[in-house]
Amino acid sequence: MLDLAAIIEARQRIAALVHRTPLLSSTSLGDLLGGIRLHLKAELFQRTGSFKPRGVANKLLSLSDEEKRRGFIAISRGNHAQALAYAATRIGQRATIVMAADAVPAKVQATRAYGGEVVLTDEDIWPLCQRLMRERGLTLVHPFDDDVVMAGQGTIGLELLEDLDDFDTVVVPIGGGGLIAGIATAVKAVRPTVRVIGVEAEASDAMRRALAAGHSVTMEGRRTVADGINAPYAGERCLLIVERLVDDVITVSEDEILAGLRLLVERSKLAAEPAAATPIAALLAGKLKTRPHERVVAVISGGNLDLGLLGRLG
Amino acid sequence: MLDLAAIIEARQRIAALVHRTPLLSSTSLGDLLGGIRLHLKAELFQRTGSFKPRGVANKLLSLSDEEKRRGFIAISRGNHAQALAYAATRIGQRATIVMAADAVPAKVQATRAYGGEVVLTDEDIWPLCQRLMRERGLTLVHPFDDDVVMAGQGTIGLELLEDLDDFDTVVVPIGGGGLIAGIATAVKAVRPTVRVIGVEAEASDAMRRALAAGHSVTMEGRRTVADGINAPYAGERCLLIVERLVDDVITVSEDEILAGLRLLVERSKLAAEPAAATPIAALLAGKLKTRPHERVVAVISGGNLDLGLLGRLG
Repeated sequence: MLDLAAIIEARQRIAALVHRTPLLSSTSLGDLLGGIRLHLKAELFQRTGSFKPRGVANKLLSLSDEEKRRGFIAISRGNHAQALAYAATRIGQRATIVMAADAVPAKVQATRAYGGEVVLTDEDIWPLCQRLMRERGLTLVHPFDDDVVMAGQGTIGLELLEDLDDFDTVVVPIGGGGLIAGIATAVKAVRPTVRVIGVEAEASDAMRRALAAGHSVTMEGRRTVADGINAPYAGERCLLIVERLVDDVITVSEDEILAGLRLLVERSKLAAEPAAATPIAALLAGKLKTRPHERVVAVISGGNLDLGLLGRLG
Repeated sequence: MLDLAAIIEARQRIAALVHRTPLLSSTSLGDLLGGIRLHLKAELFQRTGSFKPRGVANKLLSLSDEEKRRGFIAISRGNHAQALAYAATRIGQRATIVMAADAVPAKVQATRAYGGEVVLTDEDIWPLCQRLMRERGLTLVHPFDDDVVMAGQGTIGLELLEDLDDFDTVVVPIGGGGLIAGIATAVKAVRPTVRVIGVEAEASDAMRRALAAGHSVTMEGRRTVADGINAPYAGERCLLIVERLVDDVITVSEDEILAGLRLLVERSKLAAEPAAATPIAALLAGKLKTRPHERVVAVISGGNLDLGLLGRLG
């Protein structure tokens, strides 16, 4: 099971490939959200525009030289694709990313710009991925359900513990659950009284369903404007940690996400993506209860957004 | 004449009312702009969303108790209005801001939310402002053409000198010229070899005309998408400093500003306003020549933008 030691080790390992992102504070946003003392962990400033390279870099650098030499593969149409392409290129290796043929052209282009080979397909993606793994000897880099990936994401928790003398609550977007599993492991090991709260889209609530069922449940074809957290299932490894360490998982509607995004952009001046605004959405909707002066950290997980979407908020 | 000592004094004076803003770096943006080492001075994170409170706070806190008690007035439909309302409220005093009746409702509302009294008028603004000054004994707070205001803006220069061991060039948006006058005074006093470059909108080029004429020239009815730098004239006091200390003033077209804004938002994840993107526009358009690895600071002056505008870029 993932532990603090693995996260501390990850930090040393990935330091040359990722940024230590700033922790910002927004007085006006905190005032509007009930007089809390709000800090924003600005992972949208991370390389490739999301937190994902932390976990990916930890995974790639943990593999053997032979595995590195053969190369890596992932299925992703979003931030994980760019993170893998970036990290592989940085260590001089090749990444193959399989995407459905209807992937957003800008995402395909961004992944290629980071040096990734994008394979677009109309076929079922998973069998194709398995075939490529077999034929080319590639190592699969899962976006969340892997302790080594989670350890990389957990380095965000270490940075929070260093940057703030103390805080009461950390609020984290949930897709497959890798980000919150890593952060919760780091934070609870050092300050067990800090509340760790997850937020997912009501329209794509894989973690809530997994918690209710006691195991991961796969959902097909669900869509949310928060594409960064639109995972088809919660990670089994992630679920084990969320069950044990996360205090609550809250869901927010599509309208709540957009209202949170608008407030976040207008007040914090961060060009965040919808997934990254879910913690603010939960606070704004009154679904996450806080007391005045509570010290709250919202993890702003990424900034890879369609500018047209922001325009429709205006 | 404004000098370094006045800026150092300003810094102590305004410290409780303004943020020390972060200096960010963007590898991917620097790579795209010719392989420069690019730093972004994030004044959009300043209180009220622009650099303006620095100068305003220095002005208000330099006045006598009697002047403070009587209150302040300004003509502004933008960032200066919000800055004055904010700073006056913070020191427990009243601010009156005169705006034309067709001011953007969101800007009126934001100024009122900071505690300012907004007077909307269809009349000529300047005579109305003079009458209010006379009747109420208000002190005028000019947005740029005042050494005390310029000294406050110059505190940005001090922060750059502290945050970077060394740099080659600083690029600053120009409206009336107060921001660049303050920054140039601080930077050139300490590191005279640093290039200080100003950028203004071609469609509203008050400083370029003032430099050509040798005195300030008033222009009526000029418009630019970069409303934050749409000044009707360059400050006479500002001009004296720009003539002496600024290495070059570059103008950028409306299309170049929008292309710069789009690149800035997409790559740096900062929700900047068009005026704040003019340094990036000048670099992107190739109008500001740099050499590879040149250490360039772009001052991202504010983030009070219409989200609808971003949408039209997407």
